[in-house]
Amino acid sequence: MGSGPAASRRPGMTAAECQTNSMTNLRIDPERLWGELMETAAIGGTAKGGICRLTLTDLDRQVRDWFAARAEKLGCTVSVDDMGVMYARRAGTSDVPPIVMGSHLDTQPTGGKFDGALGVLGALEALRTMVEAGYETYAPIEVVNWTNEEGSRFTPAMLASGTFAGVFTRDWAAARRDRAGVTFGEALETIGYRGAEPCGARRLSAHFELHIEQGPILEAENIEIGAVTGVQGMRWYEVTITGQDAHTGATPMRLRKNALLGAARVVEAVEQIAQANAPLAVGTVGSMEVKPNSPNVVPGEVFFTVDLRHPEASLLDTMEQIFLREVDTVCRPLGLDVRLAKIWDQPPVRFDSDCVDAVRHAAAEAGYSVRDIVSGAGHDSAYVARVAPTAMIFVPCRGGISHNEAEFTSQEQCAMGAQVLLQAVLRYDRMLADRSKQ
Amino acid sequence: MGSGPAASRRPGMTAAECQTNSMTNLRIDPERLWGELMETAAIGGTAKGGICRLTLTDLDRQVRDWFAARAEKLGCTVSVDDMGVMYARRAGTSDVPPIVMGSHLDTQPTGGKFDGALGVLGALEALRTMVEAGYETYAPIEVVNWTNEEGSRFTPAMLASGTFAGVFTRDWAAARRDRAGVTFGEALETIGYRGAEPCGARRLSAHFELHIEQGPILEAENIEIGAVTGVQGMRWYEVTITGQDAHTGATPMRLRKNALLGAARVVEAVEQIAQANAPLAVGTVGSMEVKPNSPNVVPGEVFFTVDLRHPEASLLDTMEQIFLREVDTVCRPLGLDVRLAKIWDQPPVRFDSDCVDAVRHAAAEAGYSVRDIVSGAGHDSAYVARVAPTAMIFVPCRGGISHNEAEFTSQEQCAMGAQVLLQAVLRYDRMLADRSKQ
Repeated sequence: MGSGPAASRRPGMTAAECQTNSMTNLRIDPERLWGELMETAAIGGTAKGGICRLTLTDLDRQVRDWFAARAEKLGCTVSVDDMGVMYARRAGTSDVPPIVMGSHLDTQPTGGKFDGALGVLGALEALRTMVEAGYETYAPIEVVNWTNEEGSRFTPAMLASGTFAGVFTRDWAAARRDRAGVTFGEALETIGYRGAEPCGARRLSAHFELHIEQGPILEAENIEIGAVTGVQGMRWYEVTITGQDAHTGATPMRLRKNALLGAARVVEAVEQIAQANAPLAVGTVGSMEVKPNSPNVVPGEVFFTVDLRHPEASLLDTMEQIFLREVDTVCRPLGLDVRLAKIWDQPPVRFDSDCVDAVRHAAAEAGYSVRDIVSGAGHDSAYVARVAPTAMIFVPCRGGISHNEAEFTSQEQCAMGAQVLLQAVLRYDRMLADRSKQ
Repeated sequence: MGSGPAASRRPGMTAAECQTNSMTNLRIDPERLWGELMETAAIGGTAKGGICRLTLTDLDRQVRDWFAARAEKLGCTVSVDDMGVMYARRAGTSDVPPIVMGSHLDTQPTGGKFDGALGVLGALEALRTMVEAGYETYAPIEVVNWTNEEGSRFTPAMLASGTFAGVFTRDWAAARRDRAGVTFGEALETIGYRGAEPCGARRLSAHFELHIEQGPILEAENIEIGAVTGVQGMRWYEVTITGQDAHTGATPMRLRKNALLGAARVVEAVEQIAQANAPLAVGTVGSMEVKPNSPNVVPGEVFFTVDLRHPEASLLDTMEQIFLREVDTVCRPLGLDVRLAKIWDQPPVRFDSDCVDAVRHAAAEAGYSVRDIVSGAGHDSAYVARVAPTAMIFVPCRGGISHNEAEFTSQEQCAMGAQVLLQAVLRYDRMLADRSKQ
């Protein structure tokens, strides 16, 4: 195992100490990372400064080609599996399964410049830093680009990582269709990114993903790095409350069956359930449709969605039970009927403690403020965590705004995230190397 | 002044007593009225049993021609003013201004068989009963068909009666356009119903309108006749609450600016304001639009309408003030901005006490259960009341359902309404005759 050029072995240092010293001295190049973020943002760039680069479109092909070329220039071997997932590999001194770092290059239709891209390009920059320093890792290192994280063209979201983790079968995934009727498999063929390797066949030593927070917590607390300990569990309901359309002028209050009054009280109940379990719980009614939706008709039907999240399954169970009881408590005295459909149930994910520790220590070593944080949004890491030790690194994004062309994370913040990614991966690699000797 | 054939003068009766006796013995023909309701319902009849007969269409022309023919057959003179309002006149023994009874023959796009039609055809049946009995009135009696009560083709609703009352100018009214760009005046010309008489030129001794309740009160209390004492005052607001779009998973409760939570609390506040002033007050949020309306986005903007009504202007003022204060009280602590626009302010209408008394007594004489009631909906009578003594008669409609093809009032209920209309008009006519002698 060699050491990078930045390392200098002082008298009395062991080889391991020297490698550790070298490891913490490696520095990613903030301007180079920023330059590549801006360069690739032009592939699908929108007038408002965002990116529209839906998965498996020709724009996606362009950015994939760009990524493959850059990785090959670093001496990496780029392989693609049958879900189009790209793995750019730099060999280690052993042939243990690779430590993988990355995210996704697809975007929402009006996505920002950082969601996904930062994780892939930050990983590429981290890998390039190792290469340029001549730093040799114990495990092979791979930069991964997961296909269709966003789910904007093909549902569900995180289709490839879910397939990788065995949540979806490869055949089912390949048969997903976009609105034009094109299957996922056909779209892969069209852009030339359907590989031979069965998705999920390769084993990983670990998976690290750098991502913008997509929420306001780090910014609000002026914290530079979030060490992501897991992903919230999530329950989604569709609720339809039915009362009776009635004339607003001619129908006295006591003779009404006002579906919107019931819905409003459920909105309040969801708020109270989440508040009672704050700060980790969240609960939201995000969409609502009122019928007949006329100013002078008491609404006879209201449809809405309910989104409940908590990182602990048992507390999420409790929140869900209270929610179901409250819906009944609200609607029964108002003479309203209720139909409920549970449309999504995602168990909480707890990331690997060694991986999270690597992130925490890497951030501290780099001199950045860091706090543990739970991801409220889904990520490829939430699926990959089922089959490999995983953690994520969050950096702040302005106002918590994401899935929006106004999404913004500064050059300095991006650089901090990539630096922590680099050091966390190297730290984890050292741990693997040390363990191999025991 | 003669007396009808149904009257018989007992020894010792005065002529006035005999006329009164005759008056209360006149009986409308329930089957004939029902037959004409069903006959005209076929003009624009829908598959689901309703009527689609928008104002000034060829279907409206057909029912107008039918009405004119029936009225002329009874010996009436039919005249039309420059808003297309039809007046079918039977002379009285004096030339005082006429007592007018009627309503409207236009319907909503998916209207029922009774809204409007009952008031015109019930009046026609009442007039026919007088004619056939040879009963002579002191005042001329007219049956009126007001143009464009519904406002479905040309806004605003009650355009002709509003013009009659001087609320709208004749030129402004004639220039109203439908969605195809046709003006009200052009549409009148097209169907041949633009008369020469300036709308509003004629004076009325009184105006009586029979109508279905369009609400559930009479049915719920098992009352046969509503003596309508007035029309509620009404205030309409458009409210836009603005917060901040945010990810439902990644945004903690305390960092949210949830516009839908604010809107839900205003829905509750409107309910409480109305409940506190029940039974006469009503308050409703009837329409609501949520943005961006996605299950996993905390709503950043909600638009909704608020409809507040009360028959007393002072109490309506109070309700409105509390509403405005509550909006502020709700939104300020949630960090939400509010835009409010008052889009309609209709003062309460109090009907003429002599006219309402005539209805109450007529119902009692006929042996029907009766209660005072305030109209929650607007009617031509609400405008006509500004320029002539006015009252309305309500009959129940099943489930309070109206503006709907399922609207239903039974043959017996229609007949009771027409009978009360007849007796109320004759009672008012007697009062005019008696006063003329004083």
